Amino acid sequence: MERHFDEELKKLKENIITMSLISQDMIEDAIIMLKERKSELKESVFEKERKLNMIQIEIDNIAFKLIVLRQPAAGDLRFLISAIKINSDLERIGDLAVNIVERNQELLKELPLKPLIGIPRMAKISQKMVHDAIDSFINRKAELAQQVCCQDDIVDNLNEQIFRELLTYMLQDTKNITRAISLTFISKYLERIADHATNIGEDVYYMVEGKDIRHHSDDYCK
Amino acid sequence: MERHFDEELKKLKENIITMSLISQDMIEDAIIMLKERKSELKESVFEKERKLNMIQIEIDNIAFKLIVLRQPAAGDLRFLISAIKINSDLERIGDLAVNIVERNQELLKELPLKPLIGIPRMAKISQKMVHDAIDSFINRKAELAQQVCCQDDIVDNLNEQIFRELLTYMLQDTKNITRAISLTFISKYLERIADHATNIGEDVYYMVEGKDIRHHSDDYCK
Repeated sequence: MERHFDEELKKLKENIITMSLISQDMIEDAIIMLKERKSELKESVFEKERKLNMIQIEIDNIAFKLIVLRQPAAGDLRFLISAIKINSDLERIGDLAVNIVERNQELLKELPLKPLIGIPRMAKISQKMVHDAIDSFINRKAELAQQVCCQDDIVDNLNEQIFRELLTYMLQDTKNITRAISLTFISKYLERIADHATNIGEDVYYMVEGKDIRHHSDDYCK
Repeated sequence: MERHFDEELKKLKENIITMSLISQDMIEDAIIMLKERKSELKESVFEKERKLNMIQIEIDNIAFKLIVLRQPAAGDLRFLISAIKINSDLERIGDLAVNIVERNQELLKELPLKPLIGIPRMAKISQKMVHDAIDSFINRKAELAQQVCCQDDIVDNLNEQIFRELLTYMLQDTKNITRAISLTFISKYLERIADHATNIGEDVYYMVEGKDIRHHSDDYCK
């Protein structure tokens, strides 16, 4: 029975890692689609989202089954409950990548508004945050989890900066408005991806250290 | 021990209901602040958010303690895990009300762009969705949970419609742009509140019926 528990737990972890990789790929594909104007990447992101949705259901089922059948000790239980929460975050990260693709589709109908620098940079940071958040979860790294949470301010500032710049384009010429708004939303979606990675980081920190760092970023980020 | 479990469960439910009421109040305050230009409501919303954050931690602790100490049967366990997930959704709904207030603060510095009709309507529907989602959870009403999920399309369409209208204001005069964008964001925040209510509805439906209606809204909404 103990061995069976370990095997199921291993399968659960593998599924979480797969979800993390797929959601990171989706962010990357969505940004390449935007930057290199490759509309054919749309289908790849949609396909990955379907996969993500399937794995999400499987993870929830495994975690629930393990809790109800194995009555795990506090440490394992905390891990399983975190897995259920993190699972939702990863699925929503995938949804946000799909939202980016939807905005891209509108943008690709018109000429590019401007060369893109800030948005791909934000995407890189958010993607890394997702990666590190899941790494901190699987390997119970509290410090890494905290670092992920501290990155959130950087992404928030980038989002603000990108918005200010896009605003100048809108004020300059009303012809720029629809494209600038689409880019504003894409920037916002990336910021929300970073928020989900931060949620994961907070969950992991709590799981490992038993301390709540939600709503206290001022205290622990330099 | 059985009685103790029931008492703790009751406390958990009361806390969830309190969170639901506070988050609904926050939405209402935020929209009154916007519509009636009452900047003094800001503090009330911020105060409520602090309360929400405290109750969130308490709910997580109660649920976790019940699972680890009482090893509940499958039905109760599903309820407790749902409570943990729903707890996150309610806290994020509160965050979104705070986001609305932040946008309001910018808007109140300028003259109103236009009379507001769509946004207060969206707020009313989203608020009702939060109410019904929690009602469906506490009283295990699968049908009500499903109805909440079906409302999501209505809110999405309203958001789209509000955006289209605001866009015409932006195109008309660049002086309208910053205010129209703030309103676009407020509309988007309300749409996300409805998304969280929908997530709760999906969780409840799964909890009661054991059937997953995530990603299948076309099949069950008329």
